[in-house]
Amino acid sequence: MSVRVRLDLGYDGTDFAGWAAQPGQRTVEGELSRALTTLLRAPEPVRLTVAGRTDAGVHARGQVVHADVDEAAYLAVVGRSRRSPEEAAVVRLRGLLGSDILVHRVCRAPAGFDARFAAVWRRYSYRIADSLSTADPVRRRDTVWLPDPVDVDVMNQASAGLLGLKDFAAFCKRRAGATTVRTLLDFSWARGADGVVEARVVADAFCHSMVRSLVGSVVPVGLGREDAAWPGQVQAAAARNGRVKVMPAHGLCLEEVGYPADAALADRARESRARRDGA
Amino acid sequence: MSVRVRLDLGYDGTDFAGWAAQPGQRTVEGELSRALTTLLRAPEPVRLTVAGRTDAGVHARGQVVHADVDEAAYLAVVGRSRRSPEEAAVVRLRGLLGSDILVHRVCRAPAGFDARFAAVWRRYSYRIADSLSTADPVRRRDTVWLPDPVDVDVMNQASAGLLGLKDFAAFCKRRAGATTVRTLLDFSWARGADGVVEARVVADAFCHSMVRSLVGSVVPVGLGREDAAWPGQVQAAAARNGRVKVMPAHGLCLEEVGYPADAALADRARESRARRDGA
Repeated sequence: MSVRVRLDLGYDGTDFAGWAAQPGQRTVEGELSRALTTLLRAPEPVRLTVAGRTDAGVHARGQVVHADVDEAAYLAVVGRSRRSPEEAAVVRLRGLLGSDILVHRVCRAPAGFDARFAAVWRRYSYRIADSLSTADPVRRRDTVWLPDPVDVDVMNQASAGLLGLKDFAAFCKRRAGATTVRTLLDFSWARGADGVVEARVVADAFCHSMVRSLVGSVVPVGLGREDAAWPGQVQAAAARNGRVKVMPAHGLCLEEVGYPADAALADRARESRARRDGA
Repeated sequence: MSVRVRLDLGYDGTDFAGWAAQPGQRTVEGELSRALTTLLRAPEPVRLTVAGRTDAGVHARGQVVHADVDEAAYLAVVGRSRRSPEEAAVVRLRGLLGSDILVHRVCRAPAGFDARFAAVWRRYSYRIADSLSTADPVRRRDTVWLPDPVDVDVMNQASAGLLGLKDFAAFCKRRAGATTVRTLLDFSWARGADGVVEARVVADAFCHSMVRSLVGSVVPVGLGREDAAWPGQVQAAAARNGRVKVMPAHGLCLEEVGYPADAALADRARESRARRDGA
């Protein structure tokens, strides 16, 4: 008997070659699959399905993964402790993973759950320190430093023009047969108490490099080098634009993934699968 | 002619053996002195005076340092650029220092300024994640993880009992001839939007290991292992107490150092020197 398990996790992307397993590289998928395989004494590597396939250097606080595992092996994780399999798995995984990955929660997934296809939205953040006085060496791994100050109000104007159901081909790495139509639900900027400017970017799903390209189209507006209508014009052209810089990976973090109520999971997964090929 | 220069800087303490220069160790003082000596082509290592001598692993966002340097060498830093000596020094120091130290600002110190003795207060923060769901691998270098949840209200009660002009010998590493009387101006706790519990600790000055011991006396209260009056009783006994754990260094950060208005600097420095031997 197999059981579908949901894992919620965070990681510091600095020392990973991204999410996706690659031979000879340290990846989040590779490390997590190895740890789960050991934990469950599985005869073959445990296969994972992820909500957001992050690139090399990108962080996550609210990543979601599912795996279909042998039920007897899952129940056996408890061992001689008095913990539930869920708690025991969290504790044992901490011992099997480096300090830069933390599985916060393990649970049996509700019926119809699929970490990738049942997700309704993904939320990312992007952090920019735009003056030396706000650049903090303690956070240099998750914050991009710009030498010149940005205007947050004009960036919000520019970003608002990108919201909605649109073809984001201008911001996506092309993949044959994959649609680049997405619904951008939120794209807004705020300066925090620490002076750092942070973008909040929410969409039903993102294509490859999309968040970093969206941010890269709005930063020149904040710097006064492009006007606020420019990112919208780039989007409307629906083709990669050489003037849009893909921003550095380390400013980006997958914050949260949203799922519908349990009863709606299976319908949502079916619909996502039919409409596009994912994440 | 010599000129007194003030430097404002931050650092990630992870890979430093603390502030104070030690032979064969990588220290903040050692790195900064080396960089300034190179920058100014000084015939002897530039000597530094610091506001808060942080221990190994402790971070800083608002550290303040002064150095007395040759005026002609300082003016020569500008070189052929059109920048002021202050801007030129900041830019050049970035190139001479690792990515874990950042000098935000360099300026001529006002008359009477002394980074250590003119300071009126020092403010530190201490970060604690008290559940796996708030433990963030991206911030594992500046946040201590506790396995059990703490009660912030009762910690605030306990901390308030320590405020004021008191002998903090119970929280200080003994040094012959040094007073342990300090004025604790603020010691309060709050849970941030990210769920992390942060202490704010302000005093005129701190003796060695004082912030980490103060935090270590209040955390057991938050965990329900001691009652709220206990830290005050420890303080009143005025002797090191084996039950007070010195908390790990990496949760601690020197946030800010306060100085009086320029006209009052010299008087403040004279008064501090007379009353105690420092920082």
